[in-house]
Amino acid sequence: MDLFSKVLENPKAYQFEVETLGSCLIDSPVRIQEFLTEGSRCVLTLDVDQLSQTHEKFGVMPSFEFAGPHRKIFHDPAWSRAAIVTCGGLCPGLNHVIKGVVEILTFDYGIKTIYGIRYGYRGFIPRLGQPPLLLDPEVVDTIHEKGGTILGSSRGAQDTGEIVDTLIRMNINLLFCIGGDGTLRGASEISDECRKRRLGVSVIGIPKTIDNDLNFVGRTFGFETAIAETTPVIQSAHTEAKGVSNGIGLVKLMGRDSGFIATYASLAHPVVNFCLIPELDFTLTGESGLLSALQRRFKSGKDHCVIVVAEGAGQKLIQDEPERRDASGNILKKDIGEFLRREIQTFFDGLGVETSVKYFDPSYSIRSVPARGTDAIRCYLLARHAVHAAMAGRTNCVVGSPHNNNHSYCLIPIPLATRERQKVDLRSDLWKAVVDATCQLHYFSNGAEKNRMG
Amino acid sequence: MDLFSKVLENPKAYQFEVETLGSCLIDSPVRIQEFLTEGSRCVLTLDVDQLSQTHEKFGVMPSFEFAGPHRKIFHDPAWSRAAIVTCGGLCPGLNHVIKGVVEILTFDYGIKTIYGIRYGYRGFIPRLGQPPLLLDPEVVDTIHEKGGTILGSSRGAQDTGEIVDTLIRMNINLLFCIGGDGTLRGASEISDECRKRRLGVSVIGIPKTIDNDLNFVGRTFGFETAIAETTPVIQSAHTEAKGVSNGIGLVKLMGRDSGFIATYASLAHPVVNFCLIPELDFTLTGESGLLSALQRRFKSGKDHCVIVVAEGAGQKLIQDEPERRDASGNILKKDIGEFLRREIQTFFDGLGVETSVKYFDPSYSIRSVPARGTDAIRCYLLARHAVHAAMAGRTNCVVGSPHNNNHSYCLIPIPLATRERQKVDLRSDLWKAVVDATCQLHYFSNGAEKNRMG
Amino acid sequence: MDLFSKVLENPKAYQFEVETLGSCLIDSPVRIQEFLTEGSRCVLTLDVDQLSQTHEKFGVMPSFEFAGPHRKIFHDPAWSRAAIVTCGGLCPGLNHVIKGVVEILTFDYGIKTIYGIRYGYRGFIPRLGQPPLLLDPEVVDTIHEKGGTILGSSRGAQDTGEIVDTLIRMNINLLFCIGGDGTLRGASEISDECRKRRLGVSVIGIPKTIDNDLNFVGRTFGFETAIAETTPVIQSAHTEAKGVSNGIGLVKLMGRDSGFIATYASLAHPVVNFCLIPELDFTLTGESGLLSALQRRFKSGKDHCVIVVAEGAGQKLIQDEPERRDASGNILKKDIGEFLRREIQTFFDGLGVETSVKYFDPSYSIRSVPARGTDAIRCYLLARHAVHAAMAGRTNCVVGSPHNNNHSYCLIPIPLATRERQKVDLRSDLWKAVVDATCQLHYFSNGAEKNRMG
Amino acid sequence: MDLFSKVLENPKAYQFEVETLGSCLIDSPVRIQEFLTEGSRCVLTLDVDQLSQTHEKFGVMPSFEFAGPHRKIFHDPAWSRAAIVTCGGLCPGLNHVIKGVVEILTFDYGIKTIYGIRYGYRGFIPRLGQPPLLLDPEVVDTIHEKGGTILGSSRGAQDTGEIVDTLIRMNINLLFCIGGDGTLRGASEISDECRKRRLGVSVIGIPKTIDNDLNFVGRTFGFETAIAETTPVIQSAHTEAKGVSNGIGLVKLMGRDSGFIATYASLAHPVVNFCLIPELDFTLTGESGLLSALQRRFKSGKDHCVIVVAEGAGQKLIQDEPERRDASGNILKKDIGEFLRREIQTFFDGLGVETSVKYFDPSYSIRSVPARGTDAIRCYLLARHAVHAAMAGRTNCVVGSPHNNNHSYCLIPIPLATRERQKVDLRSDLWKAVVDATCQLHYFSNGAEKNRMG
Repeated sequence: MDLFSKVLENPKAYQFEVETLGSCLIDSPVRIQEFLTEGSRCVLTLDVDQLSQTHEKFGVMPSFEFAGPHRKIFHDPAWSRAAIVTCGGLCPGLNHVIKGVVEILTFDYGIKTIYGIRYGYRGFIPRLGQPPLLLDPEVVDTIHEKGGTILGSSRGAQDTGEIVDTLIRMNINLLFCIGGDGTLRGASEISDECRKRRLGVSVIGIPKTIDNDLNFVGRTFGFETAIAETTPVIQSAHTEAKGVSNGIGLVKLMGRDSGFIATYASLAHPVVNFCLIPELDFTLTGESGLLSALQRRFKSGKDHCVIVVAEGAGQKLIQDEPERRDASGNILKKDIGEFLRREIQTFFDGLGVETSVKYFDPSYSIRSVPARGTDAIRCYLLARHAVHAAMAGRTNCVVGSPHNNNHSYCLIPIPLATRERQKVDLRSDLWKAVVDATCQLHYFSNGAEKNRMG
Repeated sequence: MDLFSKVLENPKAYQFEVETLGSCLIDSPVRIQEFLTEGSRCVLTLDVDQLSQTHEKFGVMPSFEFAGPHRKIFHDPAWSRAAIVTCGGLCPGLNHVIKGVVEILTFDYGIKTIYGIRYGYRGFIPRLGQPPLLLDPEVVDTIHEKGGTILGSSRGAQDTGEIVDTLIRMNINLLFCIGGDGTLRGASEISDECRKRRLGVSVIGIPKTIDNDLNFVGRTFGFETAIAETTPVIQSAHTEAKGVSNGIGLVKLMGRDSGFIATYASLAHPVVNFCLIPELDFTLTGESGLLSALQRRFKSGKDHCVIVVAEGAGQKLIQDEPERRDASGNILKKDIGEFLRREIQTFFDGLGVETSVKYFDPSYSIRSVPARGTDAIRCYLLARHAVHAAMAGRTNCVVGSPHNNNHSYCLIPIPLATRERQKVDLRSDLWKAVVDATCQLHYFSNGAEKNRMG
Repeated sequence: MDLFSKVLENPKAYQFEVETLGSCLIDSPVRIQEFLTEGSRCVLTLDVDQLSQTHEKFGVMPSFEFAGPHRKIFHDPAWSRAAIVTCGGLCPGLNHVIKGVVEILTFDYGIKTIYGIRYGYRGFIPRLGQPPLLLDPEVVDTIHEKGGTILGSSRGAQDTGEIVDTLIRMNINLLFCIGGDGTLRGASEISDECRKRRLGVSVIGIPKTIDNDLNFVGRTFGFETAIAETTPVIQSAHTEAKGVSNGIGLVKLMGRDSGFIATYASLAHPVVNFCLIPELDFTLTGESGLLSALQRRFKSGKDHCVIVVAEGAGQKLIQDEPERRDASGNILKKDIGEFLRREIQTFFDGLGVETSVKYFDPSYSIRSVPARGTDAIRCYLLARHAVHAAMAGRTNCVVGSPHNNNHSYCLIPIPLATRERQKVDLRSDLWKAVVDATCQLHYFSNGAEKNRMG
Repeated sequence: MDLFSKVLENPKAYQFEVETLGSCLIDSPVRIQEFLTEGSRCVLTLDVDQLSQTHEKFGVMPSFEFAGPHRKIFHDPAWSRAAIVTCGGLCPGLNHVIKGVVEILTFDYGIKTIYGIRYGYRGFIPRLGQPPLLLDPEVVDTIHEKGGTILGSSRGAQDTGEIVDTLIRMNINLLFCIGGDGTLRGASEISDECRKRRLGVSVIGIPKTIDNDLNFVGRTFGFETAIAETTPVIQSAHTEAKGVSNGIGLVKLMGRDSGFIATYASLAHPVVNFCLIPELDFTLTGESGLLSALQRRFKSGKDHCVIVVAEGAGQKLIQDEPERRDASGNILKKDIGEFLRREIQTFFDGLGVETSVKYFDPSYSIRSVPARGTDAIRCYLLARHAVHAAMAGRTNCVVGSPHNNNHSYCLIPIPLATRERQKVDLRSDLWKAVVDATCQLHYFSNGAEKNRMG
């Protein structure tokens, strides 16, 4: 059962309220006609029955605080100093988010000191990192046109105490952490540590997960661009597959635990014939295995095949494998893409069926471009709302749009958003659409499931 | 006040229920684990307070019927014949929608006779149009890779009676109308006429409006792609503007009554300095006019400028103009883009300030590409839901996602969706973001409004 | 008869030798294994018979000096100061050329003072222009990724004497002029004036003409990119044309006197049905006019049409037209694209044939992108050779590759290169290929010319 | 010494004359003003001195027959039947070439029977292949918009006798072989076998080698597009490299024996820091090895690095390696890209220097797109000239443009073109440009070679 359903079953067991540092007493300098109505909240579910039932049963309608500019704020802009840090792998739009945060801090709130922490959380640890960049609108003017992050990034956690020491030393009261669930958990710990030390620091997360695996934040920035970026590679896989007799184009996409990218990419490109994701249980061999399914497809007269596989799919298959080492004794990485490439080729070679598996691993290419079009707007709006939330003294929360809508950005407590990973629901209409578009069930089931082929 | 607010004030004055042709008695042939829960509905507003207050005041929670596959359907697939028609201007994704409708009709419901009506509603009028195409999955296999519509399109209404005559003659009981508000009103009239004649025809609209001006249907297909397509042209406008001293890049975008494309394009590309939309009242001359604003910008040391203008912006300015005719006596079209180009150039020439206005009119280029990435998925999901709705005997409704979410597609009565145009709300955070990103208020107001520049 | 043929008829009447400032006595600091062999020259024609006959008849083989690094140079790097100026309209690759010149001057020759003249030749006139930029490898590091020119450009000549005064005042002995034939003629005059004043200034032209109308310099930078950039617009024109009944997509491309871009774009995109260039004589009305040709095409069952027209085509047609003025008395520009759009629409409206002409004017978009791929290499190689030529004391010459080959860059005296415009030869196999690919002769000639349709 | 130089030293030892099947007695049906002048030839070298010296020494000017339409032809169109075959790996433009051949055969010569042989030469062997496609202008109308080959391809030779048997059985007298040097050698053998059997079959090669390794044919189709396609991947490598501290982007490009693609891609993208090609001798370890060079770069303060490596580079390094096997005993492929990735990562890990090597292997993506812009024109012109040559009874030759010029297409005897591979000349100005643009010599030589850095 996914987190959404669990919450609906017992909303009282979950924390929907965002932490605040204190009362908002300062007039906001933002020039705007309409500030956020204080206390306005966004429903968790759109379903009328679910809303009514939950309300009846628990006397409460599970909901999130809307994000937006507050008429009164907590931090005094004149005394505020901000820091921005980017962590984890690259993602389209990182620079656009950085630009947005810097611009809103500067233009809307008049904050003059903004640090860009270098190479992730390690930039907070003096002995490890490089000194921060000083950011202003001039520095970030055109960075949105480039992929990557001007701050650099790194993986892995750092000592929370040391990070907070640095925040104190640098006199930072506004911290923006751009990253995925590890990063956000780190941000939450920083927020906790600040509270313990009675520091008035707002720690706001901006969700960056190209896997789309965070709960309640809607579509995160970069995801839409990443899907669009799969177009040329899937087209190439299709062309290569059709270029030889029984050709197979095999494309590995991102998705360690959640197969959203593979799912959406398959749906966006109806040339995909098999979509394999972590949520889907499949075997390689046997009557209902992938190899037999491929064989059936070729026998049915289709002389090419395009397979999309998420990096986290079929891990069971690889674990069963004996460990592989190279001559130097190094353990060879267990990679589902390389594994499938080899096994499929070997299988058909063994059958004497000519085939050629062309393998594509485009992840770095997909994630290192700038955000495009409406995705770029998402970056900018997330940044705006993060700044507004920080200035209003919110902390330990992440900005998102539970219903994926430009007018429904909310603040979600980090512990709730990162409680577990969001996954593709195999019973959803979304997955049904993939099954329809690929016809894969037909081949897996030997036609027993006639899906689309009846 | 926009339609959304009006509805919230008095929901009882509006019709939320979708017409149905009769009871659903036939078992659906769709193979799926989870059918739609009958009667499940989607809230109109996400705001907890609005929901509560409306509920208290009117005893009702305004909501839409969720779209999705029904366990029982109305039309017998074995006896069903479908027709698809595309009307109005091109839009990214038309072919993808057509492909989706054909595939779901065929694979999910086993319907074998599907007509593609040629060149819009006139394809229903034998003396005007060409005979319909016969569509099947083979015919539509790769059409999604091309822009435009394989059916062709045309503008303008045709006689409703004649259209229904043709439906009868061709024995069509499922009609899919892909178009904007004019097309949908036409669809509504066809549905009415069918009811009068006691014909069991489902008429389902699939909303196509690159202007995004329909209510309650969320983002329509093609919009996202159109925004992405503005990138090269806005970059070129920026480059050309910077290429000469005091250069001006002027880009006219679509948006006859609603400036969403100009708004989003400006937000996605922070190089835009002025965004002019139909909803915004602006003058050309005078202290707070556009010309003075441009002059102020150049005087402030910025030696270039990018202006985005929606085609429907500033109509008041052109109406005031004397009618222009060419030597043959033809009335010259009043075009805000050409008008601004000429007026700006003349103004600065008159001042002896060297400038060069480079004018871009990319509308045809933007709308004639195929849908990309997540936008392509939108096409496919809209098509699926349109077919499910039709098979369940719904009629006179349009498919949409009021909250712009892949799991909240709904059916909206056409009269409600087309009651008035959706517009950009100048008090919204969205427009505030544009004002921030462009800094245009600063120049319009001679710095009185210090927006972002204080 | 084109210049090439004229030269072959009487080579002695033309000047092939490049002016030099004096003997090359200084050791080149360039580190390279193979310097240019002094005196090595490149043949004018590739044709064995032409070579033999010319040699026999005139005792000379018309040829150009090869470009390349010289072992001995004229200018002392330690005393040298360079200036770069970009003139005329934008063209892909301008920044890449600037970068190349700066890098070779710096890295190969150790020259430290390099001025970037602002906004064309007017940057040399103190009362008109802005002060020059100081250029170094840091400044130009990533400029090649952007279209346009970081220096800015302008059109029109300036007083040669004043320009030379500025060269003297700024102590510049190396001048790189990037522009088309007007710019190069200006460069030639500067060179002449320097010689008159006995100044040792090398004036080297780098040919920038997106129209490809300079003689003997081969394909100029930007042309290849421009052709590639026509792809989306011609595809859109095709899609729009097919989107309505008898639709016409009309694309105006650059080419004031020489139709190379229209020719190449038509050849690269076999969806083009008519290619109209300045070199081609065509009429609008009458049996063999364009309107009848279009009519024939529609009658033959083809229900759409794509027309590519160079901006300089059919000028005769517009000159015959009465002058058009707008209501304010301004003369309306005679624009062949707008003219054709109106005349074609009017013609078919008059016939009662439904059509819709969609007009595309993409010139600014095509020319404002950065150079791509092999075209980017051309920029860099042209820049290298320009610097080598300048250091070796060559002047009043332009760099080019008469045979369009990366190993045959030559120096061509500017007076020869700009003597007349290069044009598309209607008797060439290139134009025959266009006629074949478009089939336009078939429609123009009412099938009398059966080209490709017999 | 390269083949070009060898030929100049002793032209008489090489065969420049193209084989012909017999006298051309039939009037060409091509409608054109200017046919090729019979006997006109194109010089081998552009250098005046080389031409004179060779002429003096050998009494001959080494030259190739110009390609073009002949006034008299050998094959009677009414009796002619053609076949087209595509072999080897994919390459941009294959479909465009096929389209061109079909169109010229049909429209210019009125030939009605054109076979598309499936999946390379094996399509000629009945027991192995699928039956041929019948091609006509309708079938090939839009294929140029897709990458790959509609015919399919395969690698490897087939029995020449069996192929000729099939030609006889199918009554084919015009054979077009599109492929690289292996394919062309196969074509040459087919031509020889036909001659032996006294069959009047014209066998014409159209050179397809994305590696650009054929002699005298100039730039082959697809190369230009391939270079342009490296842009996004090299940009991504650069972005990824800059995204982490001491990041390294490693891109493997095609080029088994000749490093042209790596060379051109490095030159087109000045972000490349090291370009490694088969022609370049380099070591991994030691003072002047790649690892030390990288270390020097990082120590010099540059905290990222982009490396482009041709697949055939550094083979010596891999051969020295002990054979590697996986757990199943399979020999692991020796892949210079994977090898460098591992070695570099291991090296810096060993030093305790944090780095992250991001590896890109985009070959399939680069070669599976359609040809673009001027490259598309090359496809069409090659196809035209191949057809003209075939109709004029030429055989055992390949079409090319020795000087890479649209007006100098020639016919080159296959044995000469495939005699040895064309390679990058490390003493050329082209390679010098790469060394300059990358500064790699500076790091390899520990600054002893100061190239560009002095």
